[in-house]
Amino acid sequence: MTTLDDLPTPSLVLDLGILRANLAGMAAAVARHPGVALRPHMKTAKSLDVAALAAPDHGPITVSTLAEARYFFEGGYKDQIYAVGIAPAKLDAVASLNAQGASIKVIVDDAEAAAAIAAHPGPLSALVEVDVGEGRGGVAPESEALLALAATLSGRLAGVLTHAGHSYAGRSAEEMARIAETERAGVVRAAERLRAAGHEVGIVSLGSSPTALYGASMEGITEIRAGVYMFGDLFQMQIGTHAPEAIALTVLASVIGRKPEREAVLLDSGSLALSKDRSTQAAPKDYGFGLVLDLDGRPSFGETLVVRTHQEHGEVKRQDGALDFARLPAGGRVRVAPNHACLTAAAYDRYHVVDGGREVVAVWDRVNGW
Amino acid sequence: MTTLDDLPTPSLVLDLGILRANLAGMAAAVARHPGVALRPHMKTAKSLDVAALAAPDHGPITVSTLAEARYFFEGGYKDQIYAVGIAPAKLDAVASLNAQGASIKVIVDDAEAAAAIAAHPGPLSALVEVDVGEGRGGVAPESEALLALAATLSGRLAGVLTHAGHSYAGRSAEEMARIAETERAGVVRAAERLRAAGHEVGIVSLGSSPTALYGASMEGITEIRAGVYMFGDLFQMQIGTHAPEAIALTVLASVIGRKPEREAVLLDSGSLALSKDRSTQAAPKDYGFGLVLDLDGRPSFGETLVVRTHQEHGEVKRQDGALDFARLPAGGRVRVAPNHACLTAAAYDRYHVVDGGREVVAVWDRVNGW
Repeated sequence: MTTLDDLPTPSLVLDLGILRANLAGMAAAVARHPGVALRPHMKTAKSLDVAALAAPDHGPITVSTLAEARYFFEGGYKDQIYAVGIAPAKLDAVASLNAQGASIKVIVDDAEAAAAIAAHPGPLSALVEVDVGEGRGGVAPESEALLALAATLSGRLAGVLTHAGHSYAGRSAEEMARIAETERAGVVRAAERLRAAGHEVGIVSLGSSPTALYGASMEGITEIRAGVYMFGDLFQMQIGTHAPEAIALTVLASVIGRKPEREAVLLDSGSLALSKDRSTQAAPKDYGFGLVLDLDGRPSFGETLVVRTHQEHGEVKRQDGALDFARLPAGGRVRVAPNHACLTAAAYDRYHVVDGGREVVAVWDRVNGW
Repeated sequence: MTTLDDLPTPSLVLDLGILRANLAGMAAAVARHPGVALRPHMKTAKSLDVAALAAPDHGPITVSTLAEARYFFEGGYKDQIYAVGIAPAKLDAVASLNAQGASIKVIVDDAEAAAAIAAHPGPLSALVEVDVGEGRGGVAPESEALLALAATLSGRLAGVLTHAGHSYAGRSAEEMARIAETERAGVVRAAERLRAAGHEVGIVSLGSSPTALYGASMEGITEIRAGVYMFGDLFQMQIGTHAPEAIALTVLASVIGRKPEREAVLLDSGSLALSKDRSTQAAPKDYGFGLVLDLDGRPSFGETLVVRTHQEHGEVKRQDGALDFARLPAGGRVRVAPNHACLTAAAYDRYHVVDGGREVVAVWDRVNGW
């Protein structure tokens, strides 16, 4: 039997029970809207084993890289949206997978890219990306560009898609519900305008973990996308989409230095093991680079945080009392809850899966890179 | 012939000519000190191909993970210092490599860890880590702990080691020279105290790229460690250790969105492709998440920066004029100079090597993870 005491550190730990509960929570949120599908975004997990639970029966998924598209197609997931604006040079790879039986839909908000999709000799279809206020990719629902893109895509138009990424700035259920309604209304309006112009709009897709959880109405929507809800992190906990005990992903780390003179210990989880993400800096509470938990995943060290990182060092200090040196001997093991699960997970090629205890019940792979 | 136009994006690009020039620069800096060896830190490059140039004839190297130790030992590099405070559970792996012919020295600043080294049945040796002002790992040169650690290690004491990481806060050659002298004096003082107590101190090791380049005297030092000098980055450029044209490492990216209404373009190099490192935030000039260069690696876009990142999106704006949209069509390719080479490189499993042009003259691998 392998336990968390036997693993090399740092290692990535995923709690199966918490993962399942998070998946059930999102499934229940989506089930409030009959006829609306969940298309989980696999950019966080990047794992077939997670997909088997999050998108059962090889259901529809969302991906963020060509590497994910290939990996999940080889694992049996045909129905994908590659939800990052497409560069024309990537169309050959997508068309090749589609020619092998995949149905990978790209997204587009650019006239030149749309023309490249329309002119490509291989099997392709695309969603027009709509901007409902995030200010990243997409065209406005009321824009001329929306109609022009659809006209260019013509028979290759699969629908419309938006992402209310600005929901991450929300700090209450009410605020997120309001952003969710803006997201819904915007993408539905885009679909209506395209239909009025004579286009068939099969897919009307929206989503972010906060708006998926808090949206009151999904009228006119065919599917919801979300990803980080599977694992959760300190940022999602801060914005209210995750309970503190619902963070499924942690980094197993060892104590590699003790500095009583400055009330600090050093862990072997630094900038690479945790990522340099500082998203909680803008959240109600700043968790530095992560919250230190005990080996069972409980916050029994109080507010003990990774406050500074070097490439392979994480410096830990306690914010709400004295650091418990007796429980942090040389080589002592802890788990660190991350600021941002998507970025922390990306440093690892596998998950060590536990189920509420310290026993490693499975090892799951990940697909990184592009 | 493969060129930068043929590669998937994002990809990691390494310029061989610049790398060679950077290596020559450091070799010349170290050659100012006859009898002092260079022990390159491979934590940045993590590549046997780079080591072949940086540490010729399988010369001594520094590593930061067990994965590097194994990889470089298998590649013929026997003489290594694993320069991150050791967790006792990792000693078996080090001893196993040493039993196979490696000479991997660990570092220690903790009484319990030193006792574990002394008691281990396998072949091990250790350097005592000395803190000369960085305030990360190490014991003070004048401390009782220094003598106690050496006494515990006894015949397994290989020497002393320090790292003036606070040299990164330096902003002038004078300031770095001053920190370098503090680093030298501190670690030499530690060696003298140990010798006075009857210990043999074979290795007296110091280094960081800034102090290696700017240290005036290396009296009493046996070797210098440095790593990021090989590649350089925007932060090193800011602190004066690198000329702007001496950044060997860039990320090849494609335009995936154009937003004239907000004077921005989107690249397919986001938080994962560039890392979330923001070290230039504290430098004289804040380069956001990276500086956009043309496909030949020249700064012909002016101060065009990646100002915001999402997981797979990098938003680009120009700081010193109008963004040159005509040169940034859909799918247009650029290169991005990173804030911090060590962290950016870690997202990739290989280097695409160019030599001043766009032709890919080699593909070099990397060892990531732990």
